[in-house]
Amino acid sequence: MHVVDAVVADRVDSRPLSAAILAVGSELLTPEKVDTNSLFITQVLNDLGIAVAFKSIVGDNRAELTAHVAHALGRHRVLILTGGLGPTDDDLTREVVAAHLGLPMHEDPEIIAAMEGRFAARGWKMPAVNRRQAQVPEGATVLANPNGTAPGLWLAHDGAVIALLPGPPREMKPMMAGEVRSRLLALAGDTRLHRRLVRVSGKGESAVEEIVQPIYSRWLAQEPPIETTILAGLGQVELHLRLQSPDAERAGAALDLAVGELTMALGQDVVSTDGRSLAAVVGDLLRARGWWVALAESCTGGLATSRLTDVPGSSDYVERSVVAYSNKAKVELLGVPAALIQEHGAVSEAVAVAMAEGMRARAGVDIAVGITGIAGPGGGSEAKPVGTVCIAVAGVQTEVRTFRFPGGREMVKAMSANWAIDLVRRALREG
Amino acid sequence: MHVVDAVVADRVDSRPLSAAILAVGSELLTPEKVDTNSLFITQVLNDLGIAVAFKSIVGDNRAELTAHVAHALGRHRVLILTGGLGPTDDDLTREVVAAHLGLPMHEDPEIIAAMEGRFAARGWKMPAVNRRQAQVPEGATVLANPNGTAPGLWLAHDGAVIALLPGPPREMKPMMAGEVRSRLLALAGDTRLHRRLVRVSGKGESAVEEIVQPIYSRWLAQEPPIETTILAGLGQVELHLRLQSPDAERAGAALDLAVGELTMALGQDVVSTDGRSLAAVVGDLLRARGWWVALAESCTGGLATSRLTDVPGSSDYVERSVVAYSNKAKVELLGVPAALIQEHGAVSEAVAVAMAEGMRARAGVDIAVGITGIAGPGGGSEAKPVGTVCIAVAGVQTEVRTFRFPGGREMVKAMSANWAIDLVRRALREG
Repeated sequence: MHVVDAVVADRVDSRPLSAAILAVGSELLTPEKVDTNSLFITQVLNDLGIAVAFKSIVGDNRAELTAHVAHALGRHRVLILTGGLGPTDDDLTREVVAAHLGLPMHEDPEIIAAMEGRFAARGWKMPAVNRRQAQVPEGATVLANPNGTAPGLWLAHDGAVIALLPGPPREMKPMMAGEVRSRLLALAGDTRLHRRLVRVSGKGESAVEEIVQPIYSRWLAQEPPIETTILAGLGQVELHLRLQSPDAERAGAALDLAVGELTMALGQDVVSTDGRSLAAVVGDLLRARGWWVALAESCTGGLATSRLTDVPGSSDYVERSVVAYSNKAKVELLGVPAALIQEHGAVSEAVAVAMAEGMRARAGVDIAVGITGIAGPGGGSEAKPVGTVCIAVAGVQTEVRTFRFPGGREMVKAMSANWAIDLVRRALREG
Repeated sequence: MHVVDAVVADRVDSRPLSAAILAVGSELLTPEKVDTNSLFITQVLNDLGIAVAFKSIVGDNRAELTAHVAHALGRHRVLILTGGLGPTDDDLTREVVAAHLGLPMHEDPEIIAAMEGRFAARGWKMPAVNRRQAQVPEGATVLANPNGTAPGLWLAHDGAVIALLPGPPREMKPMMAGEVRSRLLALAGDTRLHRRLVRVSGKGESAVEEIVQPIYSRWLAQEPPIETTILAGLGQVELHLRLQSPDAERAGAALDLAVGELTMALGQDVVSTDGRSLAAVVGDLLRARGWWVALAESCTGGLATSRLTDVPGSSDYVERSVVAYSNKAKVELLGVPAALIQEHGAVSEAVAVAMAEGMRARAGVDIAVGITGIAGPGGGSEAKPVGTVCIAVAGVQTEVRTFRFPGGREMVKAMSANWAIDLVRRALREG
């Protein structure tokens, strides 16, 4: 770390303390695979106040990788590489970085010993090909890898720092969050990134944007500015707030104020301001009351219950659920009168209410949900097109709503499940 | 298109016909957001036999974007950019590319007219800021955007072709698959990428790798080689086969042979060789027999049913399902004897069998599933640790298996749901 400090401090460098990330591996350039390592790396860098200027995904190709290393180091003082540290000929990251920096490599006997030990523990002999992974460029620090054979490497060179990390996330993450982060701390200065997450439900992205845009555009003008990113999922919107500051206390207070402003503007639509998911919030509300919930699903096919039971400990408040896909099941399991289905159709507010109330009575729970709709692509009509979904919540009182969701089958299922859980949240907040 | 042909044909270019993709937008450099546009673009390019040499994600920063455009065009003859074509000051792609190529821009009256028409159709006046989107570099071809205001641009310049596409996927995709693809066809020559997908269930990634590695390593030596990528999801493995060839018939025959070899080696574990998902395959098997299925879930919390009902038309064979989270529900809804739960515990093969057989009898279906297990993080014991899951399938006969799944709650749920559906598939193939 002292070496780093010295190297970086003793020269005036025109490059900003911004970072480039290179993810290496031909499989990451196929139409199927996406690089997610860079998200974690970005988070660690951002938390230290280091911005990511760009990230690139490069195949296992010497010329291409060399060009990218040169390009990155010509522009930025922090370079994080992941992947390409394996034992095969395809794995070029180590060699390419050393060659670009003009550093000779030598075999590190400690790495060899550690790898031999790893293999021996499983009763295997280390394959000769793994010796490659013990090659270390002159001056590099070896970063131990408790979760795999490939050690990481840390280099401070000509005013820049370079980390070479393995590709598998379970090997990369602890190394990035541990040794690399603590080495970057020495460069990063006092500024840290402070963040908040506000989850919103019940409004689309553009409706939320319309409300919050005048608010967050004001924040951009203040010093230090608060940056806001809006991310929209199926039926949910996330507002990510970010503030760079060396003063944790003032930053926290400013963000609390900002979150308060959003909560005022969005009211009941704010699900959480502490990162909890919608399902977790509903779980906490149920637990606080000592209430049990049961679900009667049709078009969501079990998705609403699956979401609710994603939360650890949900067996404390989820009593049961029924997916009554057929009319027969609606009658037998929920006591929905066959005549009601005949009169109003299976997708109707009357049937949704009968499902919820039938479930509440039969399961002997405090609150129950009934969901019936047309997920598509078939089954729609002019009066009830695909995307028509009726959701009833039976608690202290019963409420029912009809939605017309856009999109295909998966989207209708996801939006319906989300709304069903959100209507339980609203009923628990009010009731 | 003739312009392109001429420009590209009349010079000898040392750059290969490989592509670079630049995704532009600061929001893509946050820890939350991943660029998925490049996957679609890669697929279209690969199908034409054009390899992607690298892809980069760059923020809304003039210097950075300029450096990346220069870097890409210095090395490759195809450059596809997405994003940064919006109307605000942040949107720099158009300007940066024109400036780099030294092309003056002019306002295109046709684009203005089209945009004014778009706004007028909604009863709005076009904001002045949108004029930016009508700026066209000299010599560029405008690509119509039926799904948004920003038109795309196509440039043939100094032996390279450059496409500027909007960022929103629903605007980008039709443009890439339509006008850009047909223009690239003129460059691409006769070689096309031919592909197959083999889905495998019931074996982990390394077990599959061990079986297929000797097979696909042989394919790499043949001419033209077949490349194989193994992707592992939760409980499923995908084998992606790719073959570049100008001869569609021979390529098809070679891939059929290869798929046949994999099917021989993997046997019953092959779910499909035509892209169908596991749930769709099970649906087709059920429909072919005219069978109905019902599910009795516990630890999966409805996820298995949700997966089955992701398939359009699944109401033809999914009769119902019950999530019997509490013991009370297991007794009431499935007729599991309370004494059986007391004796063996809720997570036991005996209870899984009673759930499946109880469900089959009560729903009057042909085949039923019972799933009971410990998803965690709580609820485990030494004898039955977290991840212990019993799955029974009751059809012509009843079979039951106990699993010990690794990982956290979500992984246990996903693996269990996958295995439950897969055991139905195996029972339908055998019985």
